[in-house]
Amino acid sequence: MMNRLRPKDASVSPRFAGIPTFMRLPIVTDPYKLDVALMGVPFDGGTTYRDGARFGPREIRVQSALIRNYNPVLKISPFEKLRIADYGDIDVNPLSIENTFQKIQQEIETIVEADALPFSIGGDHSISLPILRALTKKHGYRQLGMIHFDSHIDTWDEYFGMKLSHGTPFRRAIEEKLLNPNKIIQIGIRGQLYNATDFDFNKKHGVTMITIEDVFEHGVSFVDDKIRNLQGDKLYLSFDIDALDPAFAPGTGTPQVGGLTSFQALQLIRALQGLEFVGFDLVEVSPPYDSKGITSLLAANLIFEFLCIIAH
Amino acid sequence: MMNRLRPKDASVSPRFAGIPTFMRLPIVTDPYKLDVALMGVPFDGGTTYRDGARFGPREIRVQSALIRNYNPVLKISPFEKLRIADYGDIDVNPLSIENTFQKIQQEIETIVEADALPFSIGGDHSISLPILRALTKKHGYRQLGMIHFDSHIDTWDEYFGMKLSHGTPFRRAIEEKLLNPNKIIQIGIRGQLYNATDFDFNKKHGVTMITIEDVFEHGVSFVDDKIRNLQGDKLYLSFDIDALDPAFAPGTGTPQVGGLTSFQALQLIRALQGLEFVGFDLVEVSPPYDSKGITSLLAANLIFEFLCIIAH
Amino acid sequence: MMNRLRPKDASVSPRFAGIPTFMRLPIVTDPYKLDVALMGVPFDGGTTYRDGARFGPREIRVQSALIRNYNPVLKISPFEKLRIADYGDIDVNPLSIENTFQKIQQEIETIVEADALPFSIGGDHSISLPILRALTKKHGYRQLGMIHFDSHIDTWDEYFGMKLSHGTPFRRAIEEKLLNPNKIIQIGIRGQLYNATDFDFNKKHGVTMITIEDVFEHGVSFVDDKIRNLQGDKLYLSFDIDALDPAFAPGTGTPQVGGLTSFQALQLIRALQGLEFVGFDLVEVSPPYDSKGITSLLAANLIFEFLCIIAH
Amino acid sequence: MMNRLRPKDASVSPRFAGIPTFMRLPIVTDPYKLDVALMGVPFDGGTTYRDGARFGPREIRVQSALIRNYNPVLKISPFEKLRIADYGDIDVNPLSIENTFQKIQQEIETIVEADALPFSIGGDHSISLPILRALTKKHGYRQLGMIHFDSHIDTWDEYFGMKLSHGTPFRRAIEEKLLNPNKIIQIGIRGQLYNATDFDFNKKHGVTMITIEDVFEHGVSFVDDKIRNLQGDKLYLSFDIDALDPAFAPGTGTPQVGGLTSFQALQLIRALQGLEFVGFDLVEVSPPYDSKGITSLLAANLIFEFLCIIAH
Amino acid sequence: MMNRLRPKDASVSPRFAGIPTFMRLPIVTDPYKLDVALMGVPFDGGTTYRDGARFGPREIRVQSALIRNYNPVLKISPFEKLRIADYGDIDVNPLSIENTFQKIQQEIETIVEADALPFSIGGDHSISLPILRALTKKHGYRQLGMIHFDSHIDTWDEYFGMKLSHGTPFRRAIEEKLLNPNKIIQIGIRGQLYNATDFDFNKKHGVTMITIEDVFEHGVSFVDDKIRNLQGDKLYLSFDIDALDPAFAPGTGTPQVGGLTSFQALQLIRALQGLEFVGFDLVEVSPPYDSKGITSLLAANLIFEFLCIIAH
Amino acid sequence: MMNRLRPKDASVSPRFAGIPTFMRLPIVTDPYKLDVALMGVPFDGGTTYRDGARFGPREIRVQSALIRNYNPVLKISPFEKLRIADYGDIDVNPLSIENTFQKIQQEIETIVEADALPFSIGGDHSISLPILRALTKKHGYRQLGMIHFDSHIDTWDEYFGMKLSHGTPFRRAIEEKLLNPNKIIQIGIRGQLYNATDFDFNKKHGVTMITIEDVFEHGVSFVDDKIRNLQGDKLYLSFDIDALDPAFAPGTGTPQVGGLTSFQALQLIRALQGLEFVGFDLVEVSPPYDSKGITSLLAANLIFEFLCIIAH
Repeated sequence: MMNRLRPKDASVSPRFAGIPTFMRLPIVTDPYKLDVALMGVPFDGGTTYRDGARFGPREIRVQSALIRNYNPVLKISPFEKLRIADYGDIDVNPLSIENTFQKIQQEIETIVEADALPFSIGGDHSISLPILRALTKKHGYRQLGMIHFDSHIDTWDEYFGMKLSHGTPFRRAIEEKLLNPNKIIQIGIRGQLYNATDFDFNKKHGVTMITIEDVFEHGVSFVDDKIRNLQGDKLYLSFDIDALDPAFAPGTGTPQVGGLTSFQALQLIRALQGLEFVGFDLVEVSPPYDSKGITSLLAANLIFEFLCIIAH
Repeated sequence: MMNRLRPKDASVSPRFAGIPTFMRLPIVTDPYKLDVALMGVPFDGGTTYRDGARFGPREIRVQSALIRNYNPVLKISPFEKLRIADYGDIDVNPLSIENTFQKIQQEIETIVEADALPFSIGGDHSISLPILRALTKKHGYRQLGMIHFDSHIDTWDEYFGMKLSHGTPFRRAIEEKLLNPNKIIQIGIRGQLYNATDFDFNKKHGVTMITIEDVFEHGVSFVDDKIRNLQGDKLYLSFDIDALDPAFAPGTGTPQVGGLTSFQALQLIRALQGLEFVGFDLVEVSPPYDSKGITSLLAANLIFEFLCIIAH
Repeated sequence: MMNRLRPKDASVSPRFAGIPTFMRLPIVTDPYKLDVALMGVPFDGGTTYRDGARFGPREIRVQSALIRNYNPVLKISPFEKLRIADYGDIDVNPLSIENTFQKIQQEIETIVEADALPFSIGGDHSISLPILRALTKKHGYRQLGMIHFDSHIDTWDEYFGMKLSHGTPFRRAIEEKLLNPNKIIQIGIRGQLYNATDFDFNKKHGVTMITIEDVFEHGVSFVDDKIRNLQGDKLYLSFDIDALDPAFAPGTGTPQVGGLTSFQALQLIRALQGLEFVGFDLVEVSPPYDSKGITSLLAANLIFEFLCIIAH
Repeated sequence: MMNRLRPKDASVSPRFAGIPTFMRLPIVTDPYKLDVALMGVPFDGGTTYRDGARFGPREIRVQSALIRNYNPVLKISPFEKLRIADYGDIDVNPLSIENTFQKIQQEIETIVEADALPFSIGGDHSISLPILRALTKKHGYRQLGMIHFDSHIDTWDEYFGMKLSHGTPFRRAIEEKLLNPNKIIQIGIRGQLYNATDFDFNKKHGVTMITIEDVFEHGVSFVDDKIRNLQGDKLYLSFDIDALDPAFAPGTGTPQVGGLTSFQALQLIRALQGLEFVGFDLVEVSPPYDSKGITSLLAANLIFEFLCIIAH
Repeated sequence: MMNRLRPKDASVSPRFAGIPTFMRLPIVTDPYKLDVALMGVPFDGGTTYRDGARFGPREIRVQSALIRNYNPVLKISPFEKLRIADYGDIDVNPLSIENTFQKIQQEIETIVEADALPFSIGGDHSISLPILRALTKKHGYRQLGMIHFDSHIDTWDEYFGMKLSHGTPFRRAIEEKLLNPNKIIQIGIRGQLYNATDFDFNKKHGVTMITIEDVFEHGVSFVDDKIRNLQGDKLYLSFDIDALDPAFAPGTGTPQVGGLTSFQALQLIRALQGLEFVGFDLVEVSPPYDSKGITSLLAANLIFEFLCIIAH
Repeated sequence: MMNRLRPKDASVSPRFAGIPTFMRLPIVTDPYKLDVALMGVPFDGGTTYRDGARFGPREIRVQSALIRNYNPVLKISPFEKLRIADYGDIDVNPLSIENTFQKIQQEIETIVEADALPFSIGGDHSISLPILRALTKKHGYRQLGMIHFDSHIDTWDEYFGMKLSHGTPFRRAIEEKLLNPNKIIQIGIRGQLYNATDFDFNKKHGVTMITIEDVFEHGVSFVDDKIRNLQGDKLYLSFDIDALDPAFAPGTGTPQVGGLTSFQALQLIRALQGLEFVGFDLVEVSPPYDSKGITSLLAANLIFEFLCIIAH
């Protein structure tokens, strides 16, 4: 069985050939046959500035054709250890955020019911909320911890009078007791705020923020120390591509200058080895704003690194 | 007063200079000082495929810097005859189509209350519905006629179970008695349908469809004959930029090949002289998919032609 | 069975969602379950100027998401009449034209053996030769006729001392008795030649060339008259996207100005109703040179029209 | 000698190889060895909106790699009849329009002194003035006639208080008695004017304007009739690429919608056979605004057609 | 009063809506109502290679829509402390550098007369000269110091025999006694020179050059030490966007590889706290060469950081 | 003589003017008049994913217009010390890798026979093999050492059953005894492998691999130490542009995230001073995938640095 879930052999079937699936993996829609379900969640109805993330899954599929099997740094091939496939996309409803959230939650519940790990590829950051709802339910309604890469805190209260958007998912998740704020670490935070009080919610609830200044000035080991506090917890991993600098990831909806380099991102992900994750998302890749696909290519590489972490 | 509402003089202030307003006109937010309010309606939450039309008003403003004053074909300068200005944008709610429709309707009511003519620059095609609601209310709830340029009929019933979207505004408008279907002419219709029955609603209600084949094979005079039937009626004008071929207007959400040329579009608009319009929209310009701004530039030119029709 | 081979319903599964297959059709790799096999042939090793056509199938898949079911001009839905699916790509060998030709011929033989009609989406124009070899073998080595849309004649003898390239397939095919030159009609021919004698081969063998001047000056009916001479013959259809003007189809390797409009292309294809085709190709879409996908979108629409011709 | 002035043989030296010269011709800087000097004039200091035409010669060289030798419509190979080469660029002064004009005039004088025909590739339209000064001097200060393709009349008086710009060259040329206004035909005129009086200068001086409406409605034969009036006159040919529609030629500084198609442009140029031209320019190609080089490719093709007219 | 000079509230008016002003600030053209006048100076007639910087102000306005109010690193909101607005553009003369310089000097004099601080957004680097003329006049003709971020020294003598260009402003300023060379620090200098002697002028006059090697090898603290020498002086700040590496700022006229990262630029600007600036410019953003607006977005962020420095 | 081989003076002839040669150098096709022959090798028939590198030489010529004469870091002007010119391109055969390799080998032999140093600008990485064949022959069939910048090892055995491709040149070169594997240092290696065994060949033969982790974590001095082991050997230098991160060099066929910055690349090249190189290539620049020419510009700068190393 597992033998069949391998990327197409690029020395036989050229990388430019074939129907584009994530990493040229087979399509498997039965979650019981999977350890990890790579799945698109093409919803961008939660964006407040530039949209287009609905095309994230499609373009990441295309650019992921370059991914090979073996990680020589972590010395692992995730496809050897785990049954990983392209699970397809969730059929979101671009006209209704509420209906979309129902569909996402339902699909994630189906996946986790089968004991597969859901890896959701967005779409905008609003999708994390229904995913967390499903995951928490699966895990006995116990609050999860979270590693969250982002330039933004995403714990704002509302936009345009609405509670659901790509700037609010983790406030909702904390309010709904899906996440334990003391077990949340946000990495890469930077950029202007609306007000001096924007961090108050995070501070009040004990969310750990590692700013970009922390990363550049204190290095990966500083982050590593913080991360170790989550050892033993069940964790969610949410990666907003705008954690990277726009030079490395221009294709996103609310880019913020002064961000991570691609090498730093790889280092930080590799530092997550040994933690226990119950779900992943990589969000906010907006292909219409990308430059020659470099953002989607980077996203595909980051997803591969996460798969290596899972396989470890 | 009127003297002040003129585009900046491009032989004194270069076209590339200054804050970009529609056609380099002054900003006027008091509708009582206006005959025509050029206004952005940057909502794209009704799109079913590619979004991005929320940036239509911004980019059409930018590209409209090339528009000059006088139309040598129609022999008119609209800015001499009418008080026209940049009225700004309606602050839509990207997270709620219902709330957005309320805001649009309210603002259009304000404008028509002041006896100014609203010229709405989208945004996606869903915005026509709240505009029509406001206009009809103003005109004593009498059904309006409509000239509708588009590749699509936009009288489908629903998408994803939802009644409001960019593919359904005119079905809703007919159902709500905002439009008189016998007084609707759709021009440029083409492309595949979902089903053979897609035209049934139109046919049943007596909507006139002029296909692209009609235009290319029978010419402008054929269209002109049809249009003459609307003489004397109060009309709405709705122009979806995808009426044009993607070679001329690539920057749109659901492009359809085999469409109008820019010259045909100009001819068809000029053929509208003598009709009585109570409102206009130009929709579905999606700048992220544009090529070097040619779609927005074309849109700006079409808007200018419409202003000449109004001024006539 | 047939019910399952339908494009995904876009009012349930959004067009931007899911793994991109041709026209959102199912993937079927058993030719016995198909009437028409839509298949990518991503080879561009025969190009003499700009390459990149190896990405043609991938990008046409992506852009074909906009295709709907029913053709209101021809009044037909090909998916109702025929079992059509995405057959995947042929695994060409980018390092060897000879090996690639073997693979193509072999795969086409497999398809025609199952009585399915092969519709090959290139890739460069060199691929037509091995396809014709396979088709002729299937049809008892009887020479086929051909309708060939192109700006170039593609009957040159050699480039760089080589006999196989995208400029020579039909000379080889005539020499190998795969095509009956008296039954070949080339449409859209234009552009400079290398020498005044370039047409000599065509003239000597009785190939009919309809130049772009013929099309623009004498119209579709002129072409129609010529085409009628092929009634009753078994025909191959080869469509080089550079038959279109670069304004409509910039994404191609050897673009030639002064070409067909998209509307003319649709008209000319629709004029083919009633002819009998045993195979199709659409070639020379080179996505790296495309502008916002308009060439691939056009290609997808032309493929749909051809499917309607087949279904008729 | 003449044998050496041929484009590189593309069946030996691939089109993508080698230092890019106009049409892959040899570089010849001695005008006495030439019949036609293809020369870049990369000045854009006369533009009033978008600049970038300084890169016109460079990019037209690049795209002209696709041009072949023989024109099958006019049945001529200009390279067989005439000694044509890449003469290089005039070293303009981007910081001074006056100094640039001196340099241009001087270089053109050198060329015409050698009895070579100068074909200037801009650059913006301001360059026509110093060229005309040089040509008129050569031709005994006799006023020249002119065929002028453009969307704009370019006989405005001044911009920003300056007499020299890309909008004024032909007013200056008429005032300086370089051009005989009764022998000027402008083709493709369209778009808004600054004022209703903008055409007054043209009308007063007897300049013939053929609007785009004339071309579309009355066809090439209408233009042809007008052109015949210039038979026997010494003429200058000035071609502003914005005569074409932006769909065909987006890469230009002041694009105007509703313009010529590429096929119309070819037809109109071919209609010039039999007239006597003493100089040519093709101007206003602005590569930063081009889309995938289609404007420069078109320009290269138009230049080839002009060379055929000269060779005739 | 000050309350009104705030960026539009993005939780009420979406960032994509409205007429694009700098940072969505109000338009104020009376300098007496301002502490800082953000103003476009769209002149690129001083460029020697790629032009297009005339569109810098327009595009920076567009991209600045993402800027929020509060700087969490410097712990300040400039809009709370200072009256800052979009002052519009100076109507430069693209056809005359001399006339443009007069207009710039005059407008800056008007602003400084009102005790507002001029923040000029170019445009090319030549504009610094007339700004310095106006500033020096205001400050009693006392020479100013300067912090100058750039990859180039911009103290060359002349180009094409001309004294005014984007490569010469600071040589002129030193010659005219506008700047005190001993109080000039240039940061980010790198790239090839014309000759080994290019630095001689700087060395002779005591200009401090901090090369990119200094920055990368010795860090921000090294720069900080140098900067402290300017404590107490009246300073001008000139920021050429090409100080950044082309990966971060591709949209500029004379890009130089091996430059600053965006994070370094932010750090270096933040190190300027405590110095006294009397004027600012940010120049050489050339949107036609930008990639998806990242250069203009970066420029907007740098401008925001400078505003924080001013507000401190 | 040497005086004539200087880049055109950019203060007289603007950088945007003239026929684009490498660094605006003269064209010299007689190798006996040269110390270094800058030459294009526009072959991309060895690529396994994205092609387009055939346009590398053309675009690097275009972007190299910005290169100036003097390197202020290395304090040298290569054009003063060496006779360097644009030697033109090798006329490769895009339809045959074998024929291309013959042509390359032959031309390189001609150059080295004249004691000129060949600097080959690709094209894809397969071209290194015939170059090495020619160089080794010249140097008495003695094996060369090599410094190899790349993200990939390029010592794979075969693709699609073929021995010649851009992933195999150095395995072939080691097998053919052209290179001494103990004298090979690869810098920048990173990214996934096909299998855990991919490095086995390198390890078995004693190739030194410096991974990107080595560079980022241990710095240039670490690399420098390794390089010193090659002091005194005759070396080849092969630079694959994908050694750089896609943010700095997007325009390449198989980009790999997490790569060198431009500043690191400059530092690493400058560390090569004192080594003895007998040939150079810079490969895998693929302009269709570049963003605004930044990859080609970077390549031109790297070539300049290498020229400085040679001149030292």
